[in-house]
Amino acid sequence: MVHNFNAGPSILPKEVFEEAAAAVLNFNNTGLSILEYGHRTAAFEAIMQEARQLMRELMALDEQHEVLFLHGGASTQFMQVPMNLLDLKDTAAYTDTGVWAAKAIKEAKLFGKPEVVCSSKDKNYTFIPKDFAVPNDAKYLHITTNNTIYGTQWKKIPVTSNSLVADMSSDILSRSMNFNVFDLIYAGAQKNIGAAGVTIVVVNKNILGKLKRNIPTMMDYRNHIAEGSMLNTPPVFAVYTCMLTLRWLKKQGGVNAIEKINNQKAALLYNEIDRNTLFKGTVAVEDRSNMNVCFVMNDANKEKAFLDYATQHQIIGIKGHRSVGGFRASLYNAMPLSSVEYLVSIMQQFEQNNPS
Amino acid sequence: MVHNFNAGPSILPKEVFEEAAAAVLNFNNTGLSILEYGHRTAAFEAIMQEARQLMRELMALDEQHEVLFLHGGASTQFMQVPMNLLDLKDTAAYTDTGVWAAKAIKEAKLFGKPEVVCSSKDKNYTFIPKDFAVPNDAKYLHITTNNTIYGTQWKKIPVTSNSLVADMSSDILSRSMNFNVFDLIYAGAQKNIGAAGVTIVVVNKNILGKLKRNIPTMMDYRNHIAEGSMLNTPPVFAVYTCMLTLRWLKKQGGVNAIEKINNQKAALLYNEIDRNTLFKGTVAVEDRSNMNVCFVMNDANKEKAFLDYATQHQIIGIKGHRSVGGFRASLYNAMPLSSVEYLVSIMQQFEQNNPS
Repeated sequence: MVHNFNAGPSILPKEVFEEAAAAVLNFNNTGLSILEYGHRTAAFEAIMQEARQLMRELMALDEQHEVLFLHGGASTQFMQVPMNLLDLKDTAAYTDTGVWAAKAIKEAKLFGKPEVVCSSKDKNYTFIPKDFAVPNDAKYLHITTNNTIYGTQWKKIPVTSNSLVADMSSDILSRSMNFNVFDLIYAGAQKNIGAAGVTIVVVNKNILGKLKRNIPTMMDYRNHIAEGSMLNTPPVFAVYTCMLTLRWLKKQGGVNAIEKINNQKAALLYNEIDRNTLFKGTVAVEDRSNMNVCFVMNDANKEKAFLDYATQHQIIGIKGHRSVGGFRASLYNAMPLSSVEYLVSIMQQFEQNNPS
Repeated sequence: MVHNFNAGPSILPKEVFEEAAAAVLNFNNTGLSILEYGHRTAAFEAIMQEARQLMRELMALDEQHEVLFLHGGASTQFMQVPMNLLDLKDTAAYTDTGVWAAKAIKEAKLFGKPEVVCSSKDKNYTFIPKDFAVPNDAKYLHITTNNTIYGTQWKKIPVTSNSLVADMSSDILSRSMNFNVFDLIYAGAQKNIGAAGVTIVVVNKNILGKLKRNIPTMMDYRNHIAEGSMLNTPPVFAVYTCMLTLRWLKKQGGVNAIEKINNQKAALLYNEIDRNTLFKGTVAVEDRSNMNVCFVMNDANKEKAFLDYATQHQIIGIKGHRSVGGFRASLYNAMPLSSVEYLVSIMQQFEQNNPS
């Protein structure tokens, strides 16, 4: 068995793979593949409807919030958010907590005046800034709730009178919170929600339609809301995979239940990193992500040997991002506790074989 | 066996379904699903590379043309094309041959001055306009090579000194032509190239980078070219399905070979429509699409009965678009000749059972 710690696209539940593969051969006993199945059919409309409804339910969204399944990835949201929420003269507050946050800031400059209210860049994004002020006139405060590359996570969502906007690509549905305090949440599906190729947007519909700008049809959230995420041909199979994964999450007991397991998984691995004489974490302890666990070796010369050892033992996807180095183990919802226990055992074996 | 005449998402080769399903369970004998497979891996980079190379080869593209696999659907190209090619004061010539063409015109108004040089709207788009002039200063001439809803097709690509831009969503790779005369071609994959969720753009790189406009990162073709269609996480599985379908097309003998079969399929069905006393075509004969065959019944009251009869005989997806009515049989590359023969036999049986 391969243990897939990839940062994304990443592990999904085994039953999702089995159901998805079956649907590629014969969808709903229609004799047709889901890949050739029209999106304007009752069967697919039911899938889209169920996927959106499961998101509502799992996030306990109120009636003001709409759920959209869109094309384009979170990178497209970097421009689509300010295009829909900022006039050119408007300010928005951005927190600079990593490469993806910085990319969001760059795009916002084309549509308004993003103001960077805090940054951890000078410490290679190894912590989440705590003390910062948000200008009263800022149309929104943008945060990246989990920073995939650096392994940091906002443990406490900032309390602000401004509108809150979040890129939750790498920790959506992994921990309980009041999702209704956000006016806009976006997330690429390919970590906790499904396969690559679809992006989820949750938006408070009351914040839309306030601008002077003419928004292109495909960029205007209101059009997607009006058409139930079927403004154009949706990525049918990607949406189907999301629906299967969301069904699985509900069966696990939802966000509260998975959060408990996620906490266990992360505690287990961080404890080992702190205990093991060969390894150390890279991130301020209080900001450590439960999704992406970044660590290095005290002796960097041993890193190649450990990576090889892990690979020999069927552990894949733990090479760290080039901007951090070392290792990164991603512990998304579908990652079983047993695989984290296994990784820990391999770290212990390696320590025994290679005393420091 | 079900015969799927859907207009898109639509039939793909059976072997593509089989290989895609196998990869969802175990990709390349890695023990991993392609749905959890990282895009920054040698194996996926090879898939993306092969998909792009197969497009180059099947279209016989020269070195100036780049192939991109993007998010967003052809509907996103309606805005992305003028955003990349027009300054606000620039004119572009558009041909109004259907609902999709009209949508392209609408988006172009946000970025420049589209001029509608011809239209068949007053005849419900049942023909392709022949006589029109393109202003010399138009930055490009935009055509929709095949109009999926109405069943018309540009049999002769206009010869112009202007740059040529085409939406080829519903007939790309179905017939031979010199694709290098186009400076930009775009197409949703979900008809002749693969499953829904990815869009192909072929662009002459020399026409890019001439504008004053600041283009958002994800909208600028140059960024996607520079990153080999991996500017952000691509729709991994959708690209994989395209690659499999393109491999299949190459094995059939490529575009020239499939064109012969497509011509046979279309001739067979149009001949039956013209011969059968119950049916008639809806489109000017010389503009009839080889991809989407639109027809109605002389007695509209019989249409429900024929649709039911066809459905009972495992023929699906032939209900016409609401703006045309009657029937539409889509004969994309993967539709076997035998299924068209079967549809014709059902039309003949229905005629015998229901003499006019």
